[in-house]
Amino acid sequence: MKLCHHELEVRTDGKGTYEITAEVESAVNRAKIRNGTVTVFVRHTSCSLTTMENAAPAARRDVERFFEELVPEDADYEHDDEGPDDMPSHIRMVLTRTSETVPIVEGKLNLGTWQGIFLFEHRRDSHHRKITLTMIGE
Amino acid sequence: MKLCHHELEVRTDGKGTYEITAEVESAVNRAKIRNGTVTVFVRHTSCSLTTMENAAPAARRDVERFFEELVPEDADYEHDDEGPDDMPSHIRMVLTRTSETVPIVEGKLNLGTWQGIFLFEHRRDSHHRKITLTMIGE
Amino acid sequence: MKLCHHELEVRTDGKGTYEITAEVESAVNRAKIRNGTVTVFVRHTSCSLTTMENAAPAARRDVERFFEELVPEDADYEHDDEGPDDMPSHIRMVLTRTSETVPIVEGKLNLGTWQGIFLFEHRRDSHHRKITLTMIGE
Repeated sequence: MKLCHHELEVRTDGKGTYEITAEVESAVNRAKIRNGTVTVFVRHTSCSLTTMENAAPAARRDVERFFEELVPEDADYEHDDEGPDDMPSHIRMVLTRTSETVPIVEGKLNLGTWQGIFLFEHRRDSHHRKITLTMIGE
Repeated sequence: MKLCHHELEVRTDGKGTYEITAEVESAVNRAKIRNGTVTVFVRHTSCSLTTMENAAPAARRDVERFFEELVPEDADYEHDDEGPDDMPSHIRMVLTRTSETVPIVEGKLNLGTWQGIFLFEHRRDSHHRKITLTMIGE
Repeated sequence: MKLCHHELEVRTDGKGTYEITAEVESAVNRAKIRNGTVTVFVRHTSCSLTTMENAAPAARRDVERFFEELVPEDADYEHDDEGPDDMPSHIRMVLTRTSETVPIVEGKLNLGTWQGIFLFEHRRDSHHRKITLTMIGE
């Protein structure tokens, strides 16, 4: 059984979902782990993770629009030090995910046909986001 | 330390929560892992996972009703290729979980007294859903 | 590769977020695991976990207020055996997290600068909450 970390950096240019499936798959290949798990962990509090449909761009836009409406920028937040997208970013992060653990089976991510792993950016500005991948297996 | 995958198939007959705790417990027993973790991973984008109260059926109905209202079928979605339950299923999945990692302690799932693991089906039609269980431990 | 469980008990005094980062870090130190993962698992259905911003108390209050409004106590729930905070606690738990897996890198939790791990208590009364930490690594 072996263990391997890999740090992934993702550049984001404003709010939206950014697919990282290929980067995760590539790190798994390089780690030469045939069977095990990879834990994807995002090291931020104003962006998050989600596993979701990766074929239809319209579905992604609907997900993004849903969160814009559920957690609006113009609500009356107490914490708004960094502007109107500050507090909604923290709430959207709480409603989605910080870590996701995906099985590795026979050298491949065991995702379903339409599943992709996404970084969900909640801030308007550009950012370099850090994600730690931890692979455990044999 | 050893590792073992098990694929679980769950037949669903429409929207709702389907308890899979017994199936997960049974796979853990067969793997003969006394201490470790089991990662439950659902390989779909229109159903999800949740760990929740398993004693009161009324509580499950309230959870299901809450999601019907929070993510209604009759909202104005851009993506609706597969009918009115298509897009709500993807959003409800994002709001709940794709993976859950549960400790295995002394050969048993370390759940609390009232905790059960559930597949949360968001589509109206019948489906065969695939869940991968990955057990790591000794 | 080794594995180690640790049971954490957290006393809560009503609704709110309770930071447990130091307790998790301390268990990781005692386990002498330099590289691996720690899975934090809460064994209850009326409280949950979240990883979030730990510097600004106002941000925590905004998160708590958001959930009070999204899942109100005075909605018409079928299940209300234990009072008005009973059913909202189960729904808020489903919307947040039961397990979180955090990387351990060079002996430290690999959290971002502003990230803390929190128990999110959804009940009004005082409780002793049980959290299982499972560390795997080398």
